[in-house]
Parts: sequence; C-alpha cells; structure tokens
Amino acid sequence: MKIGIIGGGSVGQTLGAKLIANGHDVVLGIRTPSQAEFDKERSMADTISAWMKKTGGKVMSFAEAAKHGTLIINATSGGISLDALKQAGAENLKGKVLIDIANPLDFSRGMPPTVITKYTQGTSVGEELQSAFPETHVVKAFNTIAAAVMVDPSLIKGEHDLLISGNDTAAKKTVSDFARKEFGWTSIVDLGDIVGARGTEHYLPLWVRLWGATGTPFFNIKIVKS
Amino acid sequence: MKIGIIGGGSVGQTLGAKLIANGHDVVLGIRTPSQAEFDKERSMADTISAWMKKTGGKVMSFAEAAKHGTLIINATSGGISLDALKQAGAENLKGKVLIDIANPLDFSRGMPPTVITKYTQGTSVGEELQSAFPETHVVKAFNTIAAAVMVDPSLIKGEHDLLISGNDTAAKKTVSDFARKEFGWTSIVDLGDIVGARGTEHYLPLWVRLWGATGTPFFNIKIVKS
Repeated sequence: MKIGIIGGGSVGQTLGAKLIANGHDVVLGIRTPSQAEFDKERSMADTISAWMKKTGGKVMSFAEAAKHGTLIINATSGGISLDALKQAGAENLKGKVLIDIANPLDFSRGMPPTVITKYTQGTSVGEELQSAFPETHVVKAFNTIAAAVMVDPSLIKGEHDLLISGNDTAAKKTVSDFARKEFGWTSIVDLGDIVGARGTEHYLPLWVRLWGATGTPFFNIKIVKS
Repeated sequence: MKIGIIGGGSVGQTLGAKLIANGHDVVLGIRTPSQAEFDKERSMADTISAWMKKTGGKVMSFAEAAKHGTLIINATSGGISLDALKQAGAENLKGKVLIDIANPLDFSRGMPPTVITKYTQGTSVGEELQSAFPETHVVKAFNTIAAAVMVDPSLIKGEHDLLISGNDTAAKKTVSDFARKEFGWTSIVDLGDIVGARGTEHYLPLWVRLWGATGTPFFNIKIVKS
C-alpha cells in the first residue's frame, strides 16, 4: 500500500519503519526536506538521515507525502497539525482516510503537560481536521499509547484496547483492519464520531502520570465493564 | 468512624448510604439545610428527605458535617468545591484526611462536557484544595468511576483500578485501607502527589465517551503494562 506519513518525529519514524518492514511503499513527510534538516538532531527520535539509512525509507515534503499516500497518517504534534495538513494540501488528502495520532500538548507549564487551551474549549485536533478537510475521512487512533506500542501491542502482557473515533464507518473499518493486520491489535473500542477525539486527547495528562506510576511507557488501558 | 460528606448529590448520597449501612456515623452536609431544601427535586439523585428516610442518615450544613467527621469526603461538583469547603471551614478540616471526588465539568457546551477552563491551565480541583487547606491531607480518589461502582467495584467483572493521588503517604494509606475495607476495592494505583488529580480530572471527557461505547456507566479501566 502507498502510505504518506506527515511528521518525522518519534511517532512518524516508528510507524514508517514498521510499515516499510511490512513491505509498504512509505513516504515520510517533513516540513522542509533538505540535507541540513535530515542531519538535524531530533528530540527523542533519530535524525532523518539515520532513519533513512536504517529503513531505506523516502523522505519528502508534507505535500509530496500526502500526494503519495492512499492512506495518510498525521504524526505531527497537535499544536501544528492543522498548519502541517494545510501545507500537505486539501487536494492531496481528498477522498482518503487520514489516521490522526496528534496530541495537542503544551509543555510550557512543565510536567505533566496541559492540553493546549484551544482544544479544551469544546473541540479537538481530530474535529478541527475533519472540519478543515470535509472530503477526507479522519479517524482518531493510536494517540493514547507510546509509539513502540502502536506498532507492537504485544509489548504489553494481557488484553488492552485501541481507542478509535471517526464520522465514517467504512473509514473506521479500514483503520481497524489496518491496526489488526499491520501491528497485531486484537481489541479495538469504537468511541463513536470524531467528537470522541476530545476524550482521547484529554487522556494525555493521565497517561503521563500513569507512565510515572507504572515505571514504563509501555502500558495501556483495558476497558472492563459489568 | 465519624464521617462528614460535603455535598448531597448522587455521589454524596450513594457513599453516605453505603457507609451508614456499614455502621458508620455519617453526617451529610448540604449548603442550606431546611425542609424546603430537603424536599427539593435533585437531578439524578433522590430528594434529601427520601435519602434520610431510606438511610436514617443525618443532614446538616457543610460546616457541621466537616466538624463531625474525622474523615471528610468532598462530593460536591468541582466548579463549586473550593467555595463549599471554605464554607465548611478550614478549622473543621484541619489535620484531617479529605477524600476529594470532585470533577470540574462544564456542561454549557453540551455533551461531552469540557473541563472548566481554569482547571486546564496547570492546576486541578485537588491541587487547589490542597493549596487552600494546607493543614488538611487531600487525597484525590474515586472520581473516575460512577457512584454505584465507587461503593461496589464488584459490579464490574474482572480486575480494574482505583486511581489515587496525594501528597501525604499516610493519608493515601488511610484512603486505600478505607476503599478496601468499606467497598471491597482490590487494585489501587498510586499516581503520586496531588498533581495526579490533573490526570484523573482530565479523564472525564473520555469517561463520558466510554459510557456511550460500552453502553453502561458501570465500567472502569485496568492499567496493563509490559
């Protein structure tokens, strides 16, 4: 499958590496592809050069990555997602499924991060993207777990859940099938329409504390009911 | 044990009824105790008159409930908790453990509720109370589950977690022992200091969506790790 990943940080690199290993034709999109940018040190991720060498993957602009993909993954930071996807171009996203993994976190107040205020006022990055790109099928998913767990849920012992939200039932089936087939997810919980993104984006301050409590970023939640 | 519950809504009534049934000397505190107030219809809860008749429980002012209790439970809505506990009086809370169950939700934007903006800016109700009453040991707990589950975790099949936060280790042990003995909780996850309240208070928008997804308010999460 042709996959375009928007964002060259830890999440984009991890997903890209796994999907290339699975045999897919991946383009990783970054804002300004250039040798200087490829060699730049990145926080909690490899340089783009190191990632290219390791995976054999291609790195291009946001727009080229979006144009390339039949499936698009938003792996940018939530605060810049709308801008990055506007650069990617509505025409390159039209009619496609967009998996939105972004979390709109503000680290300026220290740890734990807060949710960027705009996204606490009755909206979310997922909803904002769906509204900005009405001809794209946005599915919020994978934003409640560490990158390594996204692509290998078996890192965690026992059953645990992938939470997804989106307006389009067929797009949610596409993403669920993708999560099962590419990464081995077995339990997927559908939170309904894209408004569910408010819930999963607000979960991050708890996620950070649970990381402290469990002593590992390799954890997740299982929904248990009566 | 002498227990003072601040707040006569669904959470206060449910906890009060269970603790009275367990043999404790409970005073339920409401803002303005009067026959008219006792008979007033309450959203998603019995009238106070009906609760008194059913449980034999006592209902007094916030201050009288706080003065009565050696253990205090804040069961008010998060948006009014600070005001309610100021009415209860610092002198009546001093040196005591305060279990804070409050969630600062704003339903004015429809469902799911948002977190009241003030509490998205690097603080939480739990932290605000701890700061306002430094001689009281605030433990955030029980705010991530429905009232019926708080007092009967066996309503849910399988293991699931009670999340607690607080600055004082002895107070957290008191609350953990209380949760085990009075209600039968078996798995308690300590999120560290009271800043953990930011995490659990931000979980509520997700909780509301999970209620929709599971079809029941009787659910909870289990933390699963590597």
